[in-house]
Amino acid sequence: MTTEGPRLPTVELTAIGRVSSPLTALTDAPRQPDEGAPAAWLELDPALAPALAGVEVGDAVVVLTWLDRADRRTLAVHPRGDLDRPLLGVFATRSADRPNPVGLHTARVVAVEGTRVRLDHLEAVDGTPVLDLKPALGPVEER
Amino acid sequence: MTTEGPRLPTVELTAIGRVSSPLTALTDAPRQPDEGAPAAWLELDPALAPALAGVEVGDAVVVLTWLDRADRRTLAVHPRGDLDRPLLGVFATRSADRPNPVGLHTARVVAVEGTRVRLDHLEAVDGTPVLDLKPALGPVEER
Repeated sequence: MTTEGPRLPTVELTAIGRVSSPLTALTDAPRQPDEGAPAAWLELDPALAPALAGVEVGDAVVVLTWLDRADRRTLAVHPRGDLDRPLLGVFATRSADRPNPVGLHTARVVAVEGTRVRLDHLEAVDGTPVLDLKPALGPVEER
Repeated sequence: MTTEGPRLPTVELTAIGRVSSPLTALTDAPRQPDEGAPAAWLELDPALAPALAGVEVGDAVVVLTWLDRADRRTLAVHPRGDLDRPLLGVFATRSADRPNPVGLHTARVVAVEGTRVRLDHLEAVDGTPVLDLKPALGPVEER
């Protein structure tokens, strides 16, 4: 039996860029990427240009975003805001409201222009900070 | 044409828990989850118990971790440390060394005991801070 230590660390992340998207209101944002998210640009920090070498059109990628309008104190929600559905812990949902509101998105690269990366779809509103960009792993991601 | 604003935000995340794993050295850690990662526990903050309601044995989940031993200044790497392979930008790789070293793991829940969640495999060393836990989305995640 391990005892929870008291020292859970706090870490600082600096955004690597921002989302540029026609989605400007949370109410427009589809709840999941299969529900009609529009194409969008990731506008990355020009200082990070070397980190983009090898990111190419056609790549399947994972984008991590910071959902800065989320309520970080929320621990349980009615899924999709439907009060007829029982409360679920946020770790059992994709709710943006959660202690660390990191958005996880999968998409395909359709253009790369300097440090701007265009994705075929992204369910994040304009201006959302971007934290990381990774290749999707194919079969491993699919499990 | 948008101009990159100067104001990329810095955000603070507090870990929701830590990994408890037999993996204790980075050199033991498999580079990808299909390369033999052992089962492991997520030991979550007991204060977050309500956030776990609905997380159940058999669930396919995504875990975000903080790879606290990573070099955040690294922008390009030789994939898998193989000097014969050309340098790639870290955003084109799954290297832990990157500006925001957030680890992304997929696994299945095999036990839940209070605020401890056991996963069938996890490629993170013992003590790694955990940032978030989400359900995998099935078909969407698989694209």
